[in-house]
Amino acid sequence: MDTVKILEVKQSIFASNDEQAAALRKELKEKKVFLLNLMSAPGSGKTTTLRRTIAALKDELRIGVMEADIDSDVDARAIAETGAKAIQLHTGGMCHLDAEMTRQGLAGLGEEGLDLVVLENVGNLVCPAEFDTGSVKNAMILSVPEGHDKPLKYPLMFQVCDVVLVNKIDVLPYFDFDMDKCRAYVAMRNPNAKVIPLCARTGEGMEEWTRWLKEQVSQWQA
Amino acid sequence: MDTVKILEVKQSIFASNDEQAAALRKELKEKKVFLLNLMSAPGSGKTTTLRRTIAALKDELRIGVMEADIDSDVDARAIAETGAKAIQLHTGGMCHLDAEMTRQGLAGLGEEGLDLVVLENVGNLVCPAEFDTGSVKNAMILSVPEGHDKPLKYPLMFQVCDVVLVNKIDVLPYFDFDMDKCRAYVAMRNPNAKVIPLCARTGEGMEEWTRWLKEQVSQWQA
Repeated sequence: MDTVKILEVKQSIFASNDEQAAALRKELKEKKVFLLNLMSAPGSGKTTTLRRTIAALKDELRIGVMEADIDSDVDARAIAETGAKAIQLHTGGMCHLDAEMTRQGLAGLGEEGLDLVVLENVGNLVCPAEFDTGSVKNAMILSVPEGHDKPLKYPLMFQVCDVVLVNKIDVLPYFDFDMDKCRAYVAMRNPNAKVIPLCARTGEGMEEWTRWLKEQVSQWQA
Repeated sequence: MDTVKILEVKQSIFASNDEQAAALRKELKEKKVFLLNLMSAPGSGKTTTLRRTIAALKDELRIGVMEADIDSDVDARAIAETGAKAIQLHTGGMCHLDAEMTRQGLAGLGEEGLDLVVLENVGNLVCPAEFDTGSVKNAMILSVPEGHDKPLKYPLMFQVCDVVLVNKIDVLPYFDFDMDKCRAYVAMRNPNAKVIPLCARTGEGMEEWTRWLKEQVSQWQA
């Protein structure tokens, strides 16, 4: 397996996170780098979705990935196999990333010349939603086995996301997951959030997602 | 549907959490009340597992349940249907429960005369592991769709748990989940943790779990 760079990132104790996030976003705009913050619960398929996304877009966009985890580098290794630029961020037990940690990650990755950088946040539906990372857009993955009631229980996560990917639709027959209720609950928290059902393992539904993402990158770089 | 009591619990800013947890555990010992802290990622089946557990043990133990969520009362309603004493705790956005919040919950529930109280913690594999709630034992549920690599990524959660329930084994054929690797990774984090594969939906494996739990309660009350 490839070896990947592992970076220990540390929370800022100085400036306000919102200010740091705004400043980072401004710099990214000037550099024409689109930063996507990808969030989800543990095991919902973030890394598999990313691998598929990279495979679909790698001929059109220069892509980098920052994999945040409390420990291990299994995800960054999996991404490095796709040929995308990848770095593993270790959060030292922290349950989320803030803008300063994201900035440290970007510096470690080397974001210059990239069109799209994806930050795979720590698997957690609570804390990551509370911290603006400086990303241009927020995406989250809700997988079918987790159930359609999650927007009721984790309101902020759904409020801050621009797009909700409903992953693992291949196992819909084996779970009591109601897609209509899911859409209604997401809309209740955030009427502007786009919902895209897909299966990262089989590729079903990926086209709608990668098209949306490509459009967002184009608009940011325009 | 039944209406359930909803309590807003607040974090303590005074004493050390470890001291408060130890004091609470001492009181519970005197009252012969066994407190189980049940943790997991969102959507791994905590409430379904609890409903099955209550159905199996309700003739032998007097059971109460505290359902912690950031918002909603869907879980407490589901538990109240079983006939167990139930209360919904709202954490006001907090990603975990500490010992003082647990104490407030117990007072709201009324734990006197109960043999077993289960605290269903906020769905999160990171923060709840950092705070001793005052529980006698910690249990966590890892569901098959989340993958067998979770002990690598969320080390503390597996270190603090006495038992790991591997739920949703009915869908093993549809996921790349390796039970032997799961057991090895759990043992790597915590060689004393017991691993019990089960399916809360079908009831498979529940007997080993409820037997273990009953033994723990007996030992605590002896």
